[in-house]
This record gives sequence, structure tokens and C-alpha cells, in this order.
Amino acid sequence: MTDTISRRTGGRAARRASRAAPLSDAMRPIRPGMSGGAYQPLTPQDVERIHRTALTALEEIGLADAPESGIAHLTRAGAILGTDGRLRFPRALVEDTIAKANREITLFGRDPRHDMELSGTRVHYGTAGAAVHMVDVDGRNYRECTVQDLHDAARIADVLDNIHFVQRPMVCRDIPDNYEMDMNTVYACCAGTTKHVGTSFTEPGFVKGALEMLHMIAGGEDKWRERPFVSNSNCFVVPPMKFATEACQVMEACIEGGMPVLLLSAGMAGATAPSTIAGAIAQATAECLAGLVYVNAVSPGHPAIFGTWPFGLDLRTGAMTGGSGEQALLSAGCAQMHRFYGLPGGAVGGITDAKLPDMQAGWEAMCSNVMAGLSGLNMVYEAAGMHASLLGFCHESLILGDDLIGHALRCVRGIEVDDETLGLDQMREVCLGGPGHYLGTGQTLARMQTDYQYPALGNRMSPKQWDESGKPDLMAETIERKEEILAERSAARFDAATDAAIRETFTIHLPA
Amino acid sequence: MTDTISRRTGGRAARRASRAAPLSDAMRPIRPGMSGGAYQPLTPQDVERIHRTALTALEEIGLADAPESGIAHLTRAGAILGTDGRLRFPRALVEDTIAKANREITLFGRDPRHDMELSGTRVHYGTAGAAVHMVDVDGRNYRECTVQDLHDAARIADVLDNIHFVQRPMVCRDIPDNYEMDMNTVYACCAGTTKHVGTSFTEPGFVKGALEMLHMIAGGEDKWRERPFVSNSNCFVVPPMKFATEACQVMEACIEGGMPVLLLSAGMAGATAPSTIAGAIAQATAECLAGLVYVNAVSPGHPAIFGTWPFGLDLRTGAMTGGSGEQALLSAGCAQMHRFYGLPGGAVGGITDAKLPDMQAGWEAMCSNVMAGLSGLNMVYEAAGMHASLLGFCHESLILGDDLIGHALRCVRGIEVDDETLGLDQMREVCLGGPGHYLGTGQTLARMQTDYQYPALGNRMSPKQWDESGKPDLMAETIERKEEILAERSAARFDAATDAAIRETFTIHLPA
Repeated sequence: MTDTISRRTGGRAARRASRAAPLSDAMRPIRPGMSGGAYQPLTPQDVERIHRTALTALEEIGLADAPESGIAHLTRAGAILGTDGRLRFPRALVEDTIAKANREITLFGRDPRHDMELSGTRVHYGTAGAAVHMVDVDGRNYRECTVQDLHDAARIADVLDNIHFVQRPMVCRDIPDNYEMDMNTVYACCAGTTKHVGTSFTEPGFVKGALEMLHMIAGGEDKWRERPFVSNSNCFVVPPMKFATEACQVMEACIEGGMPVLLLSAGMAGATAPSTIAGAIAQATAECLAGLVYVNAVSPGHPAIFGTWPFGLDLRTGAMTGGSGEQALLSAGCAQMHRFYGLPGGAVGGITDAKLPDMQAGWEAMCSNVMAGLSGLNMVYEAAGMHASLLGFCHESLILGDDLIGHALRCVRGIEVDDETLGLDQMREVCLGGPGHYLGTGQTLARMQTDYQYPALGNRMSPKQWDESGKPDLMAETIERKEEILAERSAARFDAATDAAIRETFTIHLPA
Repeated sequence: MTDTISRRTGGRAARRASRAAPLSDAMRPIRPGMSGGAYQPLTPQDVERIHRTALTALEEIGLADAPESGIAHLTRAGAILGTDGRLRFPRALVEDTIAKANREITLFGRDPRHDMELSGTRVHYGTAGAAVHMVDVDGRNYRECTVQDLHDAARIADVLDNIHFVQRPMVCRDIPDNYEMDMNTVYACCAGTTKHVGTSFTEPGFVKGALEMLHMIAGGEDKWRERPFVSNSNCFVVPPMKFATEACQVMEACIEGGMPVLLLSAGMAGATAPSTIAGAIAQATAECLAGLVYVNAVSPGHPAIFGTWPFGLDLRTGAMTGGSGEQALLSAGCAQMHRFYGLPGGAVGGITDAKLPDMQAGWEAMCSNVMAGLSGLNMVYEAAGMHASLLGFCHESLILGDDLIGHALRCVRGIEVDDETLGLDQMREVCLGGPGHYLGTGQTLARMQTDYQYPALGNRMSPKQWDESGKPDLMAETIERKEEILAERSAARFDAATDAAIRETFTIHLPA
């Protein structure tokens, strides 16, 4: 419908005013948890075959190396311990577990506005990983990463709308003691963001300390258990088809402490998983199903994310590659398996093999991120900042990742088709005696903000404007933005009393 | 199955030898014309509604400004000329045309190995556009583009496996005379590549000259008509819903001369098309259907590509933006309409708003390219090299586009699921008393080349290797590659006699 008022009087001024107005939350064109699923790389028959392969693998091959406690839990649930030490899973046990597992998980933020509801094909993007290097963009250099780098990453992610959670993306290489490293990882992340945090523990015994800190941050164990805002990223298997003994013990301790777990199976296609995409997905599915049985044997209904994370290899060199098309397919295929089971799931996206945030970094990160989103992956891990096939983390890439993921999320939102959006009435009015263009129509003005996603740093100037503006450089602008963010005091910091109490109990490496 | 021979004797050497072997064509993991379609942004109901909206728009609104000749052709076919000068299209006329239109078009290359079969969801990527600037990467500068730049673009595209056709991406700003510009455009493209070429003509009268040149290149009119290797990109409409009078006359001349046409509707969502994605697709569909009726009224079955090319706007500024998520959705939605009609179709992908080949350029170009491929778009135009929302063309981006599109094509190929790829036997052998890894299995070795796509310039080194190699820079390596390509003599050049004959008849600006 033509906006006749604006056509008659000051349409241009009204449009300008409307453009300048800030976006309210309800008006935002994209949000965390939009539903994907329009992209389905597997046919229903393919999905069934992968499922059946996984069931057969669990029944006939099973998994080795469960800890004693796990063997007790799993045999009690119905798994069969073979003379070869492998636990095998009858189909009925697996199918029953799938049927009764927790299918609607909320991952809480310390601030409730960052809560993530994992169900259906709702998509969330965030960081993750265990990079050992920090990418210094200015110096074109890789250096060891520190707890300060990790804290800064959390602080940056905290202010980026399209980074929905902060799983620790790098390890604190400046803290040689593993216990101190684990405690400082939790501290550095939680003191930097009120979004949901993911972490990982080196030893089962460390979980107790972390829980103690989390109870202090939450204001008591009951408050923590009500809204656990940290989850444990748990590499519970060593593919192919072996439990990671110690990680399973960590997992049991986390379950005990009320912490959601990510059941992470990180096979390498061609090395620790079959080289074929279908085979790597099938094995990861089998392994995660075993993990799901394990979790539900320990504590029925405990929140567990189905973490099929198969990675790609460059088979010419045997080196890992996370930026390939094969990687994008691996994760998208996994998303379809999660959906088939109706279980909250996660996989990787956004990784690049590029060493710096260059054009290669852009295309590789987008490919897997947008395909993950379109496939309806609930949790897209490693979605921003990861370079050199996970070896390096980059703050500038994290910031640009916000634009990149915003763009991907606009695609996830998709195309709304209804009488209004089809616009036949508009077309009639514009073409038949109307102005011959849609610039002033109510539809155009109204949808300028609700339908269209605008980049924060991505540059849309004409060559002329760009030239007249001194040819702004994407990386220089991003570094400036990073410095702005880090110059602000973090809104996620703990109150003074809590912080003091934590520092009394733990050796905290970040300055107070 | 484990490759026992390679395990026993020299498996490592065998693997190294196998890696070094060049790829035969049959072994290549990706090819032109792979089938997409796993991504469907529209539901079947959405598609039906868009179709019905287009039919209603054609029946009730119709199109203005057809030339006299077009009015004669179209009214003879059954269109109705209103007292308002608009031609309206009864539903039956449109539906009959869809039913009898040419649904399997081959776009020929001068070299038959570059022939493209457009049918189903077969995907091809290539250049297109009308950029007025050349992006000088080294100098961070935009300058006017020349016929030499165009010729160089064709030469570069000729050697890039994943650039399947060369529609002229820029206009020769150094040739002020329009006739000379059009003739030199054809010459510069055809002398640079034996892939299918797309061009565009300024005036109907120019088509005759171009055909004369093409007959000379082909070796006679009969040879040209047998395998027309140049198509006409025809902006036959001025959206919304008006024929482009002169372009329609150009189209009639091309049809007469046996040249395939691209029915190009390039509305701008929010300006010359509805601001909504659904509305912009509906209008473009209506316009292209009108074009299809036109072509088939002039010459039943003439090869015509359904060229719904709606573009996005940045509604804040009113400037065009080709790098947005909305743009990726516009093109992917159009692909689904083509598929619904079973008609060969094309739309845009790969455009970036970035001024230089930076990270933004990478993510924007990948997003629309991979979504176009996954949606099964037959012809992805403007897929490589286009910057600043189509205003600038960049040779380095074109070269990197080959890697980027290769990556996208690997995703289009998708996931093969069968007994072999599911790998249950492999899993059994590897896990139950086997080596515990898949590195030496026959599957892994055999699939290293046929399944995995490797980038030419994209860097997969570890940080250590990268450091030891002097930190190679993506752009510096790409510039080097460009210089290598342009230092070679083009294999597409005409034989001396043909070239001399062309130069006698036409004023050719490129040096002989």
C-alpha cells in the first residue's frame, strides 16, 4: 500500500528520520535461535542408513576403554561387556535412550536475556576450540595465547550480538599448572561475559574446584543448579570407538555437579574416522549415541548436547583442515542427524585454514557457517575467530565474525511468503497510474529495519564515497573497534566481594 | 577394507607417490554442471503462491512499452493490448508457453569441452556484469576499465577450471563509440576464451555486425548456427512491469540470428521491485514469464534463459548492495522458481560490496555463491570478480573466485551415502584388532583425490610451515598467478587469417 502521507508531504525527510532511528530489540531482523532447516544435504533414506549403520556399529563393534564407573553405569543400563573389554549396545537400549533423553535444553546465560533454548532447528553461533596461538594481525605473527587474551575474547564476544555463547576458544599457555589453568579459564570467561560459557577440565578432580567457584559466582549452589551458566565440553571418546577414560570420569563429575555436558566426538575423517563424509558422520553418530546412553545411565534426562564434531583432513599431507567444503558438509550432515533424533546438537562451523583474516578466511568461515545455519544446527561451535585449522585465535576475526554470522543468520531467517510480502496490491498501485517505483511505499519504509540486516564493519560505500573517506581499510577499522571494546569496563565483572572471595580461594592470574 | 599391500611394503612411499600424481579429468572431485537442490528456501506452497501472484500480475497488470513488433508478436500469440497501452497475458497463454518452452538448453563453448547443459538443477558459475571500474589491488585504487582489462579477464577465466562461462563483466570505457565498443567486447571476450561468452548490445542495429564477426570466428553462418557460442544478455524489461523497448528489438534481432538469449529482469528490491524478498521474486518471475512468451511468440523453442536477477538495496541509503544475505536469498528463491517451471534459469551470486578482495569480500561472495549452488541454480552470474556492488571488477578476485567456487561446488556435490561410503566394514576392521586408525585403508587412499577438493591458492599450512615459508601473503601470491597467466599466449586466439579478416571489417582496439 502506498504511504500517501509521505508521498504528499516530506516523504524524503520522513525516510531520513526513519533511517536514523535506533533499532529496538523487537525490530531486529535477526535473533539468536532462529529456525533453520531449509537445507537438507541428506535424503530421508540417507539419514535412515546412517542411523542403522550407527546402531549396528554400537551393537557389533561397541566402544573400548570405559572407566570402571562407566562400565558399572552402562552394564546396569543394559550394555554388554565383551571378553575383549568392549561395551556393546543392544539396539533397544539405544532406541529407548533416544526416546527418553532430554530434547529441550536451555543453556543459561548469567544474564537471562542470553538464555539459549536448544530445540527443533533453532540456530546459535558461538566460539569454541583450544587454540594455542594468538593471531597478531598488525604484526602478521602467531604467538602463544594467554589468559588475558582469553578474557579479552570473552569481553569482545560479550558485546557482539551475533556471538551467542562463549565456549573457551583457546588455552591459557601462560599458566603451566593444569589446575590453575582450568580455574583461570572459568574465571577469565565468566568475568568477561554474561553469555553462556563452555569450558573443559583436564582432570576429574578439578571439577570440584570449578563448581566451588561457580557457586560463588552464582551466589550459592542452589542458584547455580537452578540456572547453570557454564557447560562442560567433554571429549568423552577417542575415535574410533573408544571411550576417553579420564574424560568420562570428568563427565560423571560434571553431571553430579549439575553441569550440562557437550558430548564431543572429534574424529578426523581419513585418520580416526572413515575418510568418507557419510562414514565419518555415521561413526560420530554412533559415538555420540554411546555417550547419550552413558549420560542417561548416570542421570536420566541430564542435559547433554549431541556433539558430532567430525573434522576434515587434507589427505595429501595428513594435516587437519577445518576450512574445506568437506568440513561444511560434515557439519551440515550431522545437523540433519540431530534433527532426525530430535536431540539438541552441535557441530563446528566458521573455521578457516587461513593464517590471517584475509579473503580466504572470509569465504571459508562463511561457507560452513551459513550451511550449518541453513541445516538447522542448534549450536555452531568455533563459529568465529578460529584460524590455521584451529591453531590460532584472532580477536579481529571474532569481531568481523559478528558481521559474518549476522549475514548468515539473515539467510537462516529465510523468505517469508504471505499476501503482504507477495505485494500484489503494491505492484498494482505502483504500476497502474502510480509512481512507477516502490521507494515511498509503506511496505518499503516499514521493512527497512525489520527485514534488512546491515553490517557493522562491512563496507557498502560506493567507490567514490570510499575514496573521499580516505579508503577505509577493513582491518584498521576492526582493530579500532577492538580497542574501543577493550577500553570499556566489562559489564560482566563480578561484584567486589565475590571477586575478593574467589581470589582468596583460587590463584587468579588476571589482575583484579 | 585395509590395503594390505601398502601396509606391508612401502605404504608411506605409495601414499606419497599417489599424492603427487596429477588429477585426470574423470578423477576430479568437482565438475561443471553438478546437480544442486538440497537447499530449498521456499516451501512448495510458497512456490505455488509466487507462481499464482506472477500469473495474476501478468493477467491484471501486464507490461507497458512493448515495441510495435513485439505488440504484433504478442497479440498474435494471445496477449491482449489494453487501452492503457499495456499488454496483458491470459493465464492459459503463459501456462502453454511454460509447457512448450525449450527446457534443455546447451550453451556451447567454442571448444566443445566447455559446453554447458542447462537442465534440472545443474549448476554453472561464471562472470557477468557491467562494471565501469577496474580494481587495482596493488594501488588500492579504482580506475576506468578498458578493453584490455576485459580481454585479460577472459584470458584469466579461460584457464580457471571453476569459471564455466565468460559473460562480459565490464564495459570498455576507453571506446567511446557504442558500435565499436560492442564489437570490441565480442572480440575481446572470444579472443580470450573458448568458453561460452555472454555479451550485450546497445542498439538493435549492432547485432548484424556482431553476427558477421561471429560467423567469421565460427567459419561460416551454418557453423555458428549449429553451435552458437555467444549468448545475448538482454535487459528486456525496465522493472516494474515495463518492456525495455529498444532491448526488445535487440532481442528480436538476436533470435533471428540464432543467438541464445538471457531474459534478464534486474529489479531493485525497494526501488523498482517490492522491498520484500517474496515480492521481488514474484515480480521478476512475472517479468521473465512475459519475456518467455515474447521469445516463444517470435520463435517457438528458441533457447532462452529465465533470468530473474532481483538485486538488493541498502534501504538506509537507497544504494544498491549485492553482497547481503537478502541478495543470497533472492537468488536462491529464484532458483527454486526455475526448478518449479523446469526451465533453465540464472541469477546472481558472488557479488561483494567490499572495495578490495578482503575478508568481507570473501564472506559475501561465498554466501550467495554457495547458496545459489545448493539451490540448484543453472547459471550463477557475476560469481567472481565483482566488487563495490558491481561497480568494480578485479582480476585477483576472479582468480581467487576459482578457489572459492571450487569450494562451493564441493558442497553442491554433497554427501554420497551407500554401503561403501558408510564404511561399516572399514570400521569393523579398523576397530576390532585392526590398526585403530584409517590412514592406510584402501578407502582413504582411493578417495584422496576423487572426494576431496584442494584449493590452488588458499593456504593450508600450519603456522610453523607458514612462518618458515616467509609468511606467504594471499594477495601477493594471487598477483603472481595473474602475471603468470597473462604472460602466456592465449590458447583462444583466432588463427591469423581469421584475425586479419576481422580486423579488415572492424576497428579492433586490441593490438594484433
